[in-house]
Amino acid sequence: MRNLLLTLCFDGARYHGWQIQPNAVTVQEVLQNALVSVMQEKPNLKGCSRTDAGVHARMFCVSFHTQSRIPCGRLVDALNHFLPPDVAVQACREVPEDFHARYSCKGKQYVYQIWNAPVRSPFLYQRALHYWYPLDETQLNAAAAQYVGSHDFTSFCTLDKRESRNFTRKVTQAEVRRKGNLVCFSVSADGFLYNMVRILTGTLLYVAQGKIAPDAIPKIFASKDRTRAGPTAPPQGLYLNRVFYKEADLHAD
Amino acid sequence: MRNLLLTLCFDGARYHGWQIQPNAVTVQEVLQNALVSVMQEKPNLKGCSRTDAGVHARMFCVSFHTQSRIPCGRLVDALNHFLPPDVAVQACREVPEDFHARYSCKGKQYVYQIWNAPVRSPFLYQRALHYWYPLDETQLNAAAAQYVGSHDFTSFCTLDKRESRNFTRKVTQAEVRRKGNLVCFSVSADGFLYNMVRILTGTLLYVAQGKIAPDAIPKIFASKDRTRAGPTAPPQGLYLNRVFYKEADLHAD
Repeated sequence: MRNLLLTLCFDGARYHGWQIQPNAVTVQEVLQNALVSVMQEKPNLKGCSRTDAGVHARMFCVSFHTQSRIPCGRLVDALNHFLPPDVAVQACREVPEDFHARYSCKGKQYVYQIWNAPVRSPFLYQRALHYWYPLDETQLNAAAAQYVGSHDFTSFCTLDKRESRNFTRKVTQAEVRRKGNLVCFSVSADGFLYNMVRILTGTLLYVAQGKIAPDAIPKIFASKDRTRAGPTAPPQGLYLNRVFYKEADLHAD
Repeated sequence: MRNLLLTLCFDGARYHGWQIQPNAVTVQEVLQNALVSVMQEKPNLKGCSRTDAGVHARMFCVSFHTQSRIPCGRLVDALNHFLPPDVAVQACREVPEDFHARYSCKGKQYVYQIWNAPVRSPFLYQRALHYWYPLDETQLNAAAAQYVGSHDFTSFCTLDKRESRNFTRKVTQAEVRRKGNLVCFSVSADGFLYNMVRILTGTLLYVAQGKIAPDAIPKIFASKDRTRAGPTAPPQGLYLNRVFYKEADLHAD
């Protein structure tokens, strides 16, 4: 049996996240349907992460074992033929038998996009948060720098029964940059807790509004109290941007 | 009576162009509905141009006379409240009585966006032409340079009974540039004939495909024969990018 790794990209506006569920359309469901059409086989898909409804992905990884002998290049073309226009398979490669898109993942980068102008952009509807009060990206970048490092992120996540009890994550990069009216917060870590990027973003917006002092972030970590952080920013601005694997895990010995 | 000039921006995917028509939703119709809601008055709207179904605008100008005394800033906010998310009013200003968004217009710039990669982009669905065969932007830029100047564009337009018999237009700028996978053709002129930018684009794509020699463009102008140019490129890649007026026409004496 081959173990295949697909790299996708999707506009999440129409979807209730990645994970299949009974009463809503998800990216996993449309990908599974396309795989059934192409391979006449319904493989067990492992996604690199759950994503919330309305969240986008510039890169999302999925692995699955299959009996199919269809070459990778032809599988990409065939899947794109059957997938809706807001989901695209970028690449397919064969990986070692024990590779798992989620468990083998060494880290991810998310980007949160904010359209910071008085008037909304018709081209960013459902693709960015519209925030009209002027943001000072230098101030927010300095605040975001305090996210970097190994911290207990209890204050920055929504409690989730399915989640492990370990709330420590290592953030390796956190930056705020402006490009015209678009302000982007990017953050990389070895793993993310439920709603973590959206709460990190909401906290930056509270810093911008003067509701949280920029130097209060270490105290919020220490408090382990969700109510001390800012609100959960809405999903439409969030993009899973990159997924990292160890090069060695992608190759057979 | 005041004469007001609105600057809009819209994602044209859902619309059958600007101009109101009986059995399809147009941008003029949704703007008119918003104006009725805000001003309890149905002004006669003059758009800077007709646009085809599915064509977008980063800038589109509309003028109209009104009895309303609502200040310009408040009108922008109120219209954006009533408009759908894919149409936004960027600005409003009072202009001289005889200003007309179409007749006062001195020129326009259009941009045609091509996503040039093997796999489509989910984020550019209905917002760019997906063209997978690699494009050489240097070759296309050289071909586009031959559009610059005053020419008879009979070969590069769809005949339209409403159109004047004068097919000469002055193209002041025509360039092809690449930014990653996105290839953009931008063209400015004192005026455009029906489908002109889409046919100029289709001709560049024929140059890329070797179906038209790059140096054949002067001969196509001379032939005044639509069948010698390339096909009409699809509407979803086309953006009205800028609309030019004489500064003096925008100010009362």
